[in-house]
Amino acid sequence: MSTPIFHINLPDKSIKPALWDKINNLTKPKGSLGRLEELALQIGLIQQTLSPSLRHPQNIIFAADHGIVEEGVSLSPKEVTWQQISNFLHGGAGINFLCRQHGFTLKIVDAGVDYDLPYDKGIINFKVRRGTQNYLHGPAMTKEEADLCLEQGAEIVRHCHEEGSNILSFGEMGIGNTSSSSIWMSYFTGIPLVQCVGAGSGLDTDGVRHKYHVLEQAMQNYQGDGSAFDIIRWFGGLEMVMAIGAMLQAAELGIIILVDGFIMTSCILAASHLYPEVLAYAIYGHCGDESGHRLLLDALHARPLLNMDLRLGEGTGAVCAYPLVDSAVRMINEMDNFAHASITKYF
Amino acid sequence: MSTPIFHINLPDKSIKPALWDKINNLTKPKGSLGRLEELALQIGLIQQTLSPSLRHPQNIIFAADHGIVEEGVSLSPKEVTWQQISNFLHGGAGINFLCRQHGFTLKIVDAGVDYDLPYDKGIINFKVRRGTQNYLHGPAMTKEEADLCLEQGAEIVRHCHEEGSNILSFGEMGIGNTSSSSIWMSYFTGIPLVQCVGAGSGLDTDGVRHKYHVLEQAMQNYQGDGSAFDIIRWFGGLEMVMAIGAMLQAAELGIIILVDGFIMTSCILAASHLYPEVLAYAIYGHCGDESGHRLLLDALHARPLLNMDLRLGEGTGAVCAYPLVDSAVRMINEMDNFAHASITKYF
Repeated sequence: MSTPIFHINLPDKSIKPALWDKINNLTKPKGSLGRLEELALQIGLIQQTLSPSLRHPQNIIFAADHGIVEEGVSLSPKEVTWQQISNFLHGGAGINFLCRQHGFTLKIVDAGVDYDLPYDKGIINFKVRRGTQNYLHGPAMTKEEADLCLEQGAEIVRHCHEEGSNILSFGEMGIGNTSSSSIWMSYFTGIPLVQCVGAGSGLDTDGVRHKYHVLEQAMQNYQGDGSAFDIIRWFGGLEMVMAIGAMLQAAELGIIILVDGFIMTSCILAASHLYPEVLAYAIYGHCGDESGHRLLLDALHARPLLNMDLRLGEGTGAVCAYPLVDSAVRMINEMDNFAHASITKYF
Repeated sequence: MSTPIFHINLPDKSIKPALWDKINNLTKPKGSLGRLEELALQIGLIQQTLSPSLRHPQNIIFAADHGIVEEGVSLSPKEVTWQQISNFLHGGAGINFLCRQHGFTLKIVDAGVDYDLPYDKGIINFKVRRGTQNYLHGPAMTKEEADLCLEQGAEIVRHCHEEGSNILSFGEMGIGNTSSSSIWMSYFTGIPLVQCVGAGSGLDTDGVRHKYHVLEQAMQNYQGDGSAFDIIRWFGGLEMVMAIGAMLQAAELGIIILVDGFIMTSCILAASHLYPEVLAYAIYGHCGDESGHRLLLDALHARPLLNMDLRLGEGTGAVCAYPLVDSAVRMINEMDNFAHASITKYF
């Protein structure tokens, strides 16, 4: 197969004055609902309507293993990837209670876990290979494998679209994937690697230093063509490239993308180096506790909704922020306006 | 009547190690749910249980008018106070959609609105007087009126407690009440008044300067005994003193206090100068857009949950943050632990 092509348009801005007019005539001092007003504007633009709606929210977790883990870049052993997926199935993980709380359907996708998972229990089997190659010595995956990741990520989003979803959150499970994120971040933003590397699931100072040296060496060893696609496949995780395909397909279909933490933010950064328009569809759930995430968000000029020191992944920060997105939509639909409510307009 | 007495205990800390032990054994890297973990700890302490719960959340809006408005300290005319209460009744205000979204009952209390409200429509008539006196020239209310405010605020909370509530959010509606808040803040924190005065519902720079000069003069004209109670009644709003009574009663009953914006934060600050223990029961919903709120939160060593640039009042910031409190409680109750889920504990 060839690399999938996406057709992503920027939302038509001609509706913007009408959106602001509606928001500014709601019964509140102008601007007093702050970021809820900005969110309502963005969603109105994406959906091209003065009465936006949120339908069938879903959180999709892409899971995979990482060859680089054999270099000791992660505190957590690789087996935690599949163990945690099993926990998702039983409903006992962090993302489970949040999905239940906010009415999200949870989809779990095996993009490349190095373990035979119980697919009869609802896990989507899109395993491209059993974990990436160790990119200290060469590309994490072939171009064909990266193409397949993009295509399968897109396929899942098309399926969600058919199910009626117009807002999707993406999360990940993959021991070792902060390493890929740090390298992508450094490549795509130009921020020195040392500022992009953090503790992951809990490395101490020595551990972070070792991780940095491994990743620095991996970047020095890089021998590809320097294109965005090549950087993505060389250092990527399978789950991360699949998330990129999902995000690009979501943008093409006008679906709101709820971005989770450090890893998913690095994915939308990478996606934007393929198709810059994807960013118009992104809402950033939170600024996580992983060092580098704040810098990365700043580089994207992104203002995350929450600052709760989360660093769990799985989509937890995105789903946790969902009620604020819902509030914005309810605001523009449910609040009365000054004229109808007979209130002196006080601004 | 005499000034009501409250019996507020700090939560017994002996349960703290057991709470941390439970939180740290949930299936996530230690600390990776950040502030949700801190919230779960605080709520577990308040409720003295490893399995906390949230029951029957209510948002109580205290409303009143302010004599100081005749000095031109507010952009909004006084009539907006009662007009907006009418909007609350019709369900079209900001707080209405948030209460519907998060399952809050909304109670509206007339603490001292200068208008005859339709009490048959469910507004609680605790009108102490028709607006405060203008405190530029003397106390806003008598000691007896302040006592009555405290008592009536407490009475409402006792009623909510009988209804089964264990978490209450407090909000306000009262054109002119950022002025009272700024003065209380300056008195109780020692921060110069100029840093405590902001734009309220939308003053421009000249307006803020005028407001500052009026409030500075009011503080210079103060002739009371300098006690916390006297500062509260001299410069207070009736709705604000009633909120203080409500907060103190909530703390006495072990009810979680969801603190809204600048005005409600200045109320819990003032409350803490009567009973410091009240702060143990407070969760701060958000840092608002009113300048001074951040400084005030810092002075209280408070970390607000949201930073959404809200400055509407009514309890909107507190109710908007409720899902995060709910998430914390669900986390500690619903997440599996490492031993039961058979996951390698990776920290």
